[in-house]
Amino acid sequence: MSDIRFEKIALIGIGLIGSSLARVIRERRIAGNIAVASRSSETLERAHDLNLGDSYTTSATEAVRDADLVIVCVPVGASAKVARDISDTLKPGAIVTDVGSTKQSVIEQMMPVLPETVHFIPGHPIAGTEQSGPDAGFAELFDGRWCILTPIAGTDETAIDRLTGFWHACGSMVDRMDPEHHDMVLAIVSHLPHIIAYNIVGTANDFETVSKSEVIKYSASGFRDFTRLAASDPTMWRDVCLHNKDAILEMLARFSEDLSSLQRAIRWGDGDKLFDLFNRTRHIRKSIIDAGQDVDVPDFGRHVAQTEGHGEDTL
Amino acid sequence: MSDIRFEKIALIGIGLIGSSLARVIRERRIAGNIAVASRSSETLERAHDLNLGDSYTTSATEAVRDADLVIVCVPVGASAKVARDISDTLKPGAIVTDVGSTKQSVIEQMMPVLPETVHFIPGHPIAGTEQSGPDAGFAELFDGRWCILTPIAGTDETAIDRLTGFWHACGSMVDRMDPEHHDMVLAIVSHLPHIIAYNIVGTANDFETVSKSEVIKYSASGFRDFTRLAASDPTMWRDVCLHNKDAILEMLARFSEDLSSLQRAIRWGDGDKLFDLFNRTRHIRKSIIDAGQDVDVPDFGRHVAQTEGHGEDTL
Repeated sequence: MSDIRFEKIALIGIGLIGSSLARVIRERRIAGNIAVASRSSETLERAHDLNLGDSYTTSATEAVRDADLVIVCVPVGASAKVARDISDTLKPGAIVTDVGSTKQSVIEQMMPVLPETVHFIPGHPIAGTEQSGPDAGFAELFDGRWCILTPIAGTDETAIDRLTGFWHACGSMVDRMDPEHHDMVLAIVSHLPHIIAYNIVGTANDFETVSKSEVIKYSASGFRDFTRLAASDPTMWRDVCLHNKDAILEMLARFSEDLSSLQRAIRWGDGDKLFDLFNRTRHIRKSIIDAGQDVDVPDFGRHVAQTEGHGEDTL
Repeated sequence: MSDIRFEKIALIGIGLIGSSLARVIRERRIAGNIAVASRSSETLERAHDLNLGDSYTTSATEAVRDADLVIVCVPVGASAKVARDISDTLKPGAIVTDVGSTKQSVIEQMMPVLPETVHFIPGHPIAGTEQSGPDAGFAELFDGRWCILTPIAGTDETAIDRLTGFWHACGSMVDRMDPEHHDMVLAIVSHLPHIIAYNIVGTANDFETVSKSEVIKYSASGFRDFTRLAASDPTMWRDVCLHNKDAILEMLARFSEDLSSLQRAIRWGDGDKLFDLFNRTRHIRKSIIDAGQDVDVPDFGRHVAQTEGHGEDTL
């Protein structure tokens, strides 16, 4: 894992994903040089303090100069602007990829702007936490997680192989997928869960007869699980909703249909139907644990985290 | 914590909660004698193998004989039957409590059947994991969690104090609440989250164009969080839905209203509204962590659990 795969990697955006990439690239010596770009000079300064790269600039245009690999790590709504900023200084033969949660929109935004001399390969690492910003990243974020590449037909296979190798070096497994299918899959496994989590936390927040302190005190009975996803970066999630609209609306329609049916079973006291519904979802968690995509301890390992002295209970 | 508070405690039902109580009672020497009752002889045998009590019986009637404290730990739908089974052998002056997730229904089921010679004090420890059965329990389950008592007007205050002391000895903090208010609070903090989790996992399960293996592989992007609650005991949750119907239907109506509004913002591309919605939920997680009701580490401490060798990734 210590062979240098790229002379220079430019990271455009240095939030959770960008800064995790910076850390793993450095730790596993994947690149000789890391250029960090952020629009915000405050974020950039923090990245500098954390020693995440070899050079720092608020100009994406500058960061990508001479880079062999450019990774765009910004909210998906900013993709077009980044593409415009970098297109003139991109090195011919460079690989340009991104980490955005929607793929059709990113392709529509970047593809027409990028020069034909570069290899544009859209990507999406399925990894993250609820935290954001350069402090939130860590080198192990991608270990054992999947990264989905959605190359456009006719893309140079050697470039795809190089990018695949990069993600392997970061600890990921790599899948290839059609961008449209990606957007549908992610709508159900990621976008719908986040939207539902934001919604339920909002509903609880608005309640007039149950106080906020009650919601907080008794949150260990279920509610707290949703607050993690609902603590995610609002800009990122606004952009996801705006840029994967059709697939998300489709998922919301299905979800609501199913919920109406469940609601009806509750109203009419249909215990058998409720039992059947509640009984068929258990095995999915087991499959996820068996696939190494969640921890095999009760309560996500919260008790372990507490015992080991992380996240001490304050009571 | 080692003063014996009760000569004999009878646990009716020995699942996650019952067996956690058995463990903490023994470990902290809260009772001289623990009688374990379970309808299922298989469960009872397992409880015996785990050495959870001092006596074991499939007859609740027998278990409660001479007990000073009787704790009913069964799905709420079985409360009436348990009350009928135990009413004739309850020792005068005994405290009878329960751990059910709904309180008005439990009171309606048990109150008319129990003799006036005992102190019936409904209770609900706000603690649990997604696992069930006698193997799933652990002595620390109640540490730092709240237990809500919903005593009926006129209940002997000394008995309430003794039961409060019992829960303190188990590691809990204790609140008192009106049963109706309890059912409303729990509908929003616990019942709605579980129903929504079951529903979203069901929706994903039914999808025809996204395969189950895709849902599992990419679940780390959000979906997996919901699978924990959706792996909870189906019998318990069927009963909760049937026995807290009105409050749950009210919460579902509010949730659906809010979701329709969010859906509309997505359809019309109202980025400002989406940002506002997604921005106001973040602080709730912080409050929950500050209140000691969740761990202060990203991703619920999954990375800690993995690093410490629990829940090893299989990949």
